[in-house]
Amino acid sequence: MRSSKFFTRLAVLVFVGLVTVSASEAADRDKLLSEPGVYGTFAAFSLDAGWGRQDQAVRIAQLTVLKGVVEQHREKVAIDTYLLRGLSDHADVLFRIHAAELRETQQFLLDLQGSLFVKHLTKAAIMHGLTKKAIYVPGFPDQVKADLKIVSEPGPNPYAIVIPIRKSADWWGLDQDKRVAMMQEHSEASSPYIKTVKRKLYHSSGLDDLDFITYFETSKLEDFHSLILALEKVKEFPYNRRFGHPTLVGTMKSLDEIIEILAQ
Amino acid sequence: MRSSKFFTRLAVLVFVGLVTVSASEAADRDKLLSEPGVYGTFAAFSLDAGWGRQDQAVRIAQLTVLKGVVEQHREKVAIDTYLLRGLSDHADVLFRIHAAELRETQQFLLDLQGSLFVKHLTKAAIMHGLTKKAIYVPGFPDQVKADLKIVSEPGPNPYAIVIPIRKSADWWGLDQDKRVAMMQEHSEASSPYIKTVKRKLYHSSGLDDLDFITYFETSKLEDFHSLILALEKVKEFPYNRRFGHPTLVGTMKSLDEIIEILAQ
Amino acid sequence: MRSSKFFTRLAVLVFVGLVTVSASEAADRDKLLSEPGVYGTFAAFSLDAGWGRQDQAVRIAQLTVLKGVVEQHREKVAIDTYLLRGLSDHADVLFRIHAAELRETQQFLLDLQGSLFVKHLTKAAIMHGLTKKAIYVPGFPDQVKADLKIVSEPGPNPYAIVIPIRKSADWWGLDQDKRVAMMQEHSEASSPYIKTVKRKLYHSSGLDDLDFITYFETSKLEDFHSLILALEKVKEFPYNRRFGHPTLVGTMKSLDEIIEILAQ
Amino acid sequence: MRSSKFFTRLAVLVFVGLVTVSASEAADRDKLLSEPGVYGTFAAFSLDAGWGRQDQAVRIAQLTVLKGVVEQHREKVAIDTYLLRGLSDHADVLFRIHAAELRETQQFLLDLQGSLFVKHLTKAAIMHGLTKKAIYVPGFPDQVKADLKIVSEPGPNPYAIVIPIRKSADWWGLDQDKRVAMMQEHSEASSPYIKTVKRKLYHSSGLDDLDFITYFETSKLEDFHSLILALEKVKEFPYNRRFGHPTLVGTMKSLDEIIEILAQ
Amino acid sequence: MRSSKFFTRLAVLVFVGLVTVSASEAADRDKLLSEPGVYGTFAAFSLDAGWGRQDQAVRIAQLTVLKGVVEQHREKVAIDTYLLRGLSDHADVLFRIHAAELRETQQFLLDLQGSLFVKHLTKAAIMHGLTKKAIYVPGFPDQVKADLKIVSEPGPNPYAIVIPIRKSADWWGLDQDKRVAMMQEHSEASSPYIKTVKRKLYHSSGLDDLDFITYFETSKLEDFHSLILALEKVKEFPYNRRFGHPTLVGTMKSLDEIIEILAQ
Repeated sequence: MRSSKFFTRLAVLVFVGLVTVSASEAADRDKLLSEPGVYGTFAAFSLDAGWGRQDQAVRIAQLTVLKGVVEQHREKVAIDTYLLRGLSDHADVLFRIHAAELRETQQFLLDLQGSLFVKHLTKAAIMHGLTKKAIYVPGFPDQVKADLKIVSEPGPNPYAIVIPIRKSADWWGLDQDKRVAMMQEHSEASSPYIKTVKRKLYHSSGLDDLDFITYFETSKLEDFHSLILALEKVKEFPYNRRFGHPTLVGTMKSLDEIIEILAQ
Repeated sequence: MRSSKFFTRLAVLVFVGLVTVSASEAADRDKLLSEPGVYGTFAAFSLDAGWGRQDQAVRIAQLTVLKGVVEQHREKVAIDTYLLRGLSDHADVLFRIHAAELRETQQFLLDLQGSLFVKHLTKAAIMHGLTKKAIYVPGFPDQVKADLKIVSEPGPNPYAIVIPIRKSADWWGLDQDKRVAMMQEHSEASSPYIKTVKRKLYHSSGLDDLDFITYFETSKLEDFHSLILALEKVKEFPYNRRFGHPTLVGTMKSLDEIIEILAQ
Repeated sequence: MRSSKFFTRLAVLVFVGLVTVSASEAADRDKLLSEPGVYGTFAAFSLDAGWGRQDQAVRIAQLTVLKGVVEQHREKVAIDTYLLRGLSDHADVLFRIHAAELRETQQFLLDLQGSLFVKHLTKAAIMHGLTKKAIYVPGFPDQVKADLKIVSEPGPNPYAIVIPIRKSADWWGLDQDKRVAMMQEHSEASSPYIKTVKRKLYHSSGLDDLDFITYFETSKLEDFHSLILALEKVKEFPYNRRFGHPTLVGTMKSLDEIIEILAQ
Repeated sequence: MRSSKFFTRLAVLVFVGLVTVSASEAADRDKLLSEPGVYGTFAAFSLDAGWGRQDQAVRIAQLTVLKGVVEQHREKVAIDTYLLRGLSDHADVLFRIHAAELRETQQFLLDLQGSLFVKHLTKAAIMHGLTKKAIYVPGFPDQVKADLKIVSEPGPNPYAIVIPIRKSADWWGLDQDKRVAMMQEHSEASSPYIKTVKRKLYHSSGLDDLDFITYFETSKLEDFHSLILALEKVKEFPYNRRFGHPTLVGTMKSLDEIIEILAQ
Repeated sequence: MRSSKFFTRLAVLVFVGLVTVSASEAADRDKLLSEPGVYGTFAAFSLDAGWGRQDQAVRIAQLTVLKGVVEQHREKVAIDTYLLRGLSDHADVLFRIHAAELRETQQFLLDLQGSLFVKHLTKAAIMHGLTKKAIYVPGFPDQVKADLKIVSEPGPNPYAIVIPIRKSADWWGLDQDKRVAMMQEHSEASSPYIKTVKRKLYHSSGLDDLDFITYFETSKLEDFHSLILALEKVKEFPYNRRFGHPTLVGTMKSLDEIIEILAQ
């Protein structure tokens, strides 16, 4: 099995590794990942039973096409890749795509689904959200604001967790003041974990059957568990009509790493 | 890949482009899209895994038949087409059909499902509604009435969003006065977005497991998100027992554009 | 396409039309459709993807067997047929079977599912109910009773709608008096539509995960929509824990008409 | 069709009828069906589309193996068989197995699923329960106790109905006294039907996502409907969080009868 | 059938039995199974219809690979195996994996799903939890603490039951004191069964759409039923929003026993 893995790695290097995109053509990834007004899409796919029945050469050829599609679109959109297989029963691979316009994301996913590779990819879930300036933070005390500015360090080889959320109608019917107060309690409860658990929020109302997509990265999974446990105890939590369903758990992997695993 | 797209476009022009319907035979589309008492059907379809495994020539031949079926029925019913693929995990293509009688819509969908093309089309969802005169507007103040008359300009290449709604039994048990007051608040909350987000309402009670189908068109998706967020905060919102499930998000495309994409 | 339809019609006449049942052998349809103590079964079926891939000759041969099975059982049970395809995403064909004993219905459906045709029929839903004398009517005022005796005239080529209902536990816990009063309001609300919308009620408690199956026929679908809207506003409506799910909408068709459509 | 049925019957007699188990080896069926502390399992199976596409000779050969498996296990467990097909959209065949230990039931179902026949059997539902001494009866008045001792006579060729039940948390939180009082009302409501509707209760808490499995046999289906209607009106009924879902309705058939039907 | 079983056993011994892992390489199983801060994963798989259609030789070859994958990973993670088939309609085989890091579990499941065997394994459910020090026990009286220290003796050939739990938002909103008091009542209710029913608790908040996974082992299934019944009656029970769904019931089997059963 060791030598088989070696062969795979070699083949992947030779056949797949040749496809790259020059840095100058790449989308302004930093801007897309940090600014408000950007559309974030989480697209999870499963491999059907037919995938593993193909010859390894065929699988490698198809993965080469996959890589080409991804590299081509990296000119316009920011693409992150995650391996859910082995940790999630919902899907095998997850793409997180950031784009200035949702139609650019659609074009990427059309090409992905149209590629040869995707004959064995079943779409499992697509969720959309929008990044926005923090809504409640301006009303927070200075200390809480300061805590929120601490830079997270998720650590090496982090896990990624995606939890979609739908608030109850009661939540939206509350006065802005009450929501600010509850979100402040929420922020305070999460502050002990801000250093080891990186978070990002997407607003989804109308774009999907959700209000928010919450995204987490950490290599200290126990800290993440403690964070969620702390959030379950604050007054805002009962206003979540849906929390997860699905909760997607995976590991961050480069596209080359995922290709190597799927080629085996 | 560029040259492959060029070939597809050429082939589609030659084989599929010949099928058209003369303007004189077309249904009175303007009337169907503007008058009350018209049945609106949203029929979403998915392509199964077998579609992509066929030769491109076979796919183009089948898409030619599809186009023929659509053009033939355009004599009687108004048909709009949308691409959901790449943005929705519920379906790939959406047809919106307006007809004076639901049996004309049935005849179109029978021919569509019976065509060769549809061997690989799985029906994902069919929803029916009826256009009616505005029920609550007569009770609104003049300013609100005036706001509602502003003509929407959804902009170029718009997105389309379909959100089915079921009201709670409590809603229907309210006095007409209370419902008028709440719908006035609803209208006022949506007025800032009336110019960039085009809306259309279908009444579904009894025709489906729904009370309403709400349909939106906009090229400013962030405005649409803000509209839904505003509607979530009005007093009428908690009376929605079901809101979405599914929320269908796609892009408006001509039939020729969709055919070109599916032919690849 | 026109000539193809003509051929189908001819073939259906020659091959399928020969199978009939003499009137003298037919079940006493009038009695089964009007008397209490009769079991009504709604059995909806879908055609799988393989159906359309068969040769038309094979499809016609199989439809001949289907017709034979139906005609043979018409000696014992009353069978009505409906086309759901093109209007419903739940199923393609609906059989409504009235029988003195449910085991006669089982024998018919066993033979139907065992016939060659049914290799491509997937059962989508089977629902059972029992006709009973009107329970609440004896307590109604004379005028309401008189209104209920108006004979419905559903009109030509009617639509048929089936809505299953489960009442809440609260409903069954109410005093008989309160239920009579609410059902009287229910009857009064529906009286404007009694002439154009024909209705029939089946009692299902214990026979299925339902309490009632409500069945409607009308060629004025807008009247049916108004009827359901009126019923949503009466005090009895919130006691429906399940209303529809599925709502089945189709068109009444003779078996020969359905065979002709499926043969294409 | 008549002659085909005759052939089937003959073939079944010759090939399948030879497999029997001597009475002396049979499990003590009477004890298993009457004593407390016995595990009752309801295992429902569906036949997939491939079953009907096989040659009749192959189907008969496979049914012979099925019969062998059942007869072999009748030495240890009590097995009853029911035909759901034609009456239920949940499954085609139902086995009710009584065993002193659940691992004996597992062994039977393993052999059944491992047999050739089961290549086309899809498991639809497996539910487990335990027979126990009546819990509430000791607190009932003498008359109610006497009523409960009436021996049921379900009549010839009875229908069988299985209704799984999950009680609400509120039910288990009630004082024992209150539960006894409600179960007494429950028993009194069902007493008019005790003669024609045979009942059996299985306790499932922890063994499945259920609290009880209720099993009924009757040839007077209308009486059974009236029984359930009466039970829906007692004070204990609202404490059923789940009642049915699925409700399984079928007819009691010997294994030979079921084999004959499936062989066609 | 006897001789066939004998052959299978022989073949399994010869082909599969050769694959082992020396004790010195094995993960520190005792530590993983007893310490806090360990990740527990329950991964349930179903065999698809294709599995049984393969030759026995092919099945045995594939099971040999399966055993190799398991033995190889036993160097790093602790793996327990269970047979659900015949007792559960959710899955056929269950793996319980204990690991210091979830990425080690992912690596094992990746290799398992990538092995030849798994071409016919469909993943049915994956659930994750984390072992932690008892949270409420420090607040219990000494007698309750002492009871909890009794060592369970599940007996020979035990059954295993897995029940996932999600608490309501109300639970997490309670004061710690109130939760301690309720968990003490919970512990007292379960103490009569502590000797015959072995239990283990996993904390899942954030790692899955669950708060807890509860795991039980017992050869006295009736005691386990009585335990759950007792727990349904304590004040903490209504705070379980989800209890089971699925409840997984199976028998503990060594990998060799499972392989022998699946090889038949």
